Amino acid sequence: MIRHQDILLANQFDREFLDHLYDITNKVRTIAKTNSGSLYLKKLLSDKRVMLYFSQPSTRTFMSFLNACQILGMSHSSIRDTTTSSEIKGESKLDSLRTLSSYVDLIIMRTPDAEFAEESASFLKKTRRPVPIINAGSGSKEHPTQALLDIYTLQRSFKNTGGISGKTILFCGDLSRGRTVKSLIKLLEKYDSVKIIQCAPDELQLARGFKSSNRLEEYLHEADAVYMTRIQDEYDKVKGETQRSYEGFKLTKDNIKLMKPNSIIMHPLPRRDEISSDIDDDPRAMYWRQCRNGMWTRVALIAYLFERDEDILKY
Amino acid sequence: MIRHQDILLANQFDREFLDHLYDITNKVRTIAKTNSGSLYLKKLLSDKRVMLYFSQPSTRTFMSFLNACQILGMSHSSIRDTTTSSEIKGESKLDSLRTLSSYVDLIIMRTPDAEFAEESASFLKKTRRPVPIINAGSGSKEHPTQALLDIYTLQRSFKNTGGISGKTILFCGDLSRGRTVKSLIKLLEKYDSVKIIQCAPDELQLARGFKSSNRLEEYLHEADAVYMTRIQDEYDKVKGETQRSYEGFKLTKDNIKLMKPNSIIMHPLPRRDEISSDIDDDPRAMYWRQCRNGMWTRVALIAYLFERDEDILKY
Amino acid sequence: MIRHQDILLANQFDREFLDHLYDITNKVRTIAKTNSGSLYLKKLLSDKRVMLYFSQPSTRTFMSFLNACQILGMSHSSIRDTTTSSEIKGESKLDSLRTLSSYVDLIIMRTPDAEFAEESASFLKKTRRPVPIINAGSGSKEHPTQALLDIYTLQRSFKNTGGISGKTILFCGDLSRGRTVKSLIKLLEKYDSVKIIQCAPDELQLARGFKSSNRLEEYLHEADAVYMTRIQDEYDKVKGETQRSYEGFKLTKDNIKLMKPNSIIMHPLPRRDEISSDIDDDPRAMYWRQCRNGMWTRVALIAYLFERDEDILKY
Repeated sequence: MIRHQDILLANQFDREFLDHLYDITNKVRTIAKTNSGSLYLKKLLSDKRVMLYFSQPSTRTFMSFLNACQILGMSHSSIRDTTTSSEIKGESKLDSLRTLSSYVDLIIMRTPDAEFAEESASFLKKTRRPVPIINAGSGSKEHPTQALLDIYTLQRSFKNTGGISGKTILFCGDLSRGRTVKSLIKLLEKYDSVKIIQCAPDELQLARGFKSSNRLEEYLHEADAVYMTRIQDEYDKVKGETQRSYEGFKLTKDNIKLMKPNSIIMHPLPRRDEISSDIDDDPRAMYWRQCRNGMWTRVALIAYLFERDEDILKY
Repeated sequence: MIRHQDILLANQFDREFLDHLYDITNKVRTIAKTNSGSLYLKKLLSDKRVMLYFSQPSTRTFMSFLNACQILGMSHSSIRDTTTSSEIKGESKLDSLRTLSSYVDLIIMRTPDAEFAEESASFLKKTRRPVPIINAGSGSKEHPTQALLDIYTLQRSFKNTGGISGKTILFCGDLSRGRTVKSLIKLLEKYDSVKIIQCAPDELQLARGFKSSNRLEEYLHEADAVYMTRIQDEYDKVKGETQRSYEGFKLTKDNIKLMKPNSIIMHPLPRRDEISSDIDDDPRAMYWRQCRNGMWTRVALIAYLFERDEDILKY
Repeated sequence: MIRHQDILLANQFDREFLDHLYDITNKVRTIAKTNSGSLYLKKLLSDKRVMLYFSQPSTRTFMSFLNACQILGMSHSSIRDTTTSSEIKGESKLDSLRTLSSYVDLIIMRTPDAEFAEESASFLKKTRRPVPIINAGSGSKEHPTQALLDIYTLQRSFKNTGGISGKTILFCGDLSRGRTVKSLIKLLEKYDSVKIIQCAPDELQLARGFKSSNRLEEYLHEADAVYMTRIQDEYDKVKGETQRSYEGFKLTKDNIKLMKPNSIIMHPLPRRDEISSDIDDDPRAMYWRQCRNGMWTRVALIAYLFERDEDILKY
């Protein structure tokens, strides 16, 4: 198995890695259930320090990573507002990165610049003290750990029904402008015979040749998982232009009656009203567990980068 | 004894709880005096994680809670500026709360919204993974942990003179607009024969039928504790309107001569000039110790919420 | 040997202290190379809490100190934006300081006010619970820990060539307006026969009678260390006025050919273009290691303040 040194792109993972990460994540969750297990995890990386370099605002992903690091006992520093940083004194971004990297053992990075995580990783490789980089979201291009947690959630939900292979995943909403769905689809292609359906307004559909509809209800009954997304109206050229066409793409107490009893509803969150909050208690609503799965997947991923995955599996 | 799962309102505590918290707090302080004791405390909750959700600016209360959590070895995340949060992407406050709660074991919350802490606690109770809530100040309504630390300070100061019962507490300053005094009075009513006097400008007095004066010096000689408060002029309808009427309500090297030798001076801080800094060294000046008591009371309270109070008392 | 209780001014250190700190720093680095050593360090001050009080923006120095504290296992709180602090409620700076100090065991302080660190230290000495203060940069006056890390870097670089005494240090750039160079020169004067040369535009030279040039290349061949500094144009009275005269004061792949093979290039960072990035790989480029040395020097310094230096040396 290839050992990844950085986590940069959803594309970098093969099936073997996805299965390995699934195993580590499951084991970590089991270990954490007991007090002694939690203390074991908290010692695992207690001599390591991490920098959370978030120059793009994010609460959810930041907190998910931070708590993952804390579960492993890591100390952390964070940068969340680059206006207080040395950049105002005219320092280059790569100089800032090199300085910050000199204090820590890992950098978790979220930037509006689509290429910066890759650029950083290859730059640091050339220095005397390279540290691994995890891409926690780069512009509208990549969000590989979101894709990993989505895969984990699907795999876990389908563990008694043959796994991801052969399942039908329906994506709904603003598909062309978000990075989440694109990254996830890349990973789904590593599994056999996954059927993808998209339900979205015409102008927000993905270009590729998936089975498509501009009516959510048309295919709800076929889906094993319905993956909802929020409207990304921060990309609207005219404020509110996509709001109207989005009206039909919402899950409600009414239309989820069309869904199979064993299917699941996913959402990367935050949601607006594309999922009515009165279905949060439905057993198929998986989005809150998906959110917590994110933290556990990140615990597994960080332990893996520091080559503690085998220790965890043997615990 | 009732076991509280959340700390929301000063009203929720009975005498038995207040006495229990006093005992835990005293024991924690004793334990922390030695190096091995400090390390014992730092392991006590080292597998727990806390979220400090402070959407209302606060340095003092934030730092007091944060250091209390650190004394117990907890890892923490914090939100102090909701403008970087997902709320800008249109998420509801309860969705944000549920997401954040999914990463941690305790939420300490300060909000401008008077009802949000209670609303949050009852909302989380209905989810699959409720976590306890501590109200660290909600609007102008409640600040229950301030009341608890005030009670602790009074009880400790009067431990050799029969405790709080039967004492005379004089409140001075801006009484009608702050939450501190109102919460503390609720707790003082759990003790026998506590006499309350208020000295304040007429328009800032409490409505209830306490012995009142609009001249501070009138009753200073009667007080066992003088509880000073700053003017809350952020609530002034006309800027500066209360400033003038406040002139007489200040403690100075001169007028404290009227106070009993064993009485104490309290203040929730921050102060402006309602207590002259040249009396900080007077043995009756209790406000700096009161501030540090706050941290220890919070240590005791958090340990209690995780049911480690008996372990502490047995140490 | 005098035991310092606070770190306030570069002037306070004698040679004996500088040599002692060099030894502790070297030992700490050796200890940290192993996993068990890192865990030893992380327990050393694990019952202590530190407040990073940074009312002047700084990323580099903040992160360096924070990671130093984390290496020693300390818990930390930080203030980086005084607009969210109680000061807005009209509290005096000394009251804020006293409150914050009541929660922690050490304050590391960076302020725009040149005198505040000294004032704070002498104020706290008079209270019931003084805690040590480290000055992490006060206005344009002092930055004593930068001077300490510079001395450490020089001493380490010259360990096989007789140490700092007798060496020639060339300072280049904006010398009159920065605090770094002035503090370092104070410490260099504790060593025998150190020769100081300054190369700077006439108006940015130091007043004192050092060998001077307004042409960088004139003395490059004489230097054992070339200490570059960035232009401090935030002090320009007319925007850009010093930019032009600064053109000649840059190190390039070309002019470093004039430097001795065993000499070193230092820079407090951040740099702009006064050092061309294409010489970063030159073995004489010491500035990135200097940056990491800063963290280790601070680890040593903090351990020293808590009187754990002898434990470290004996490890």
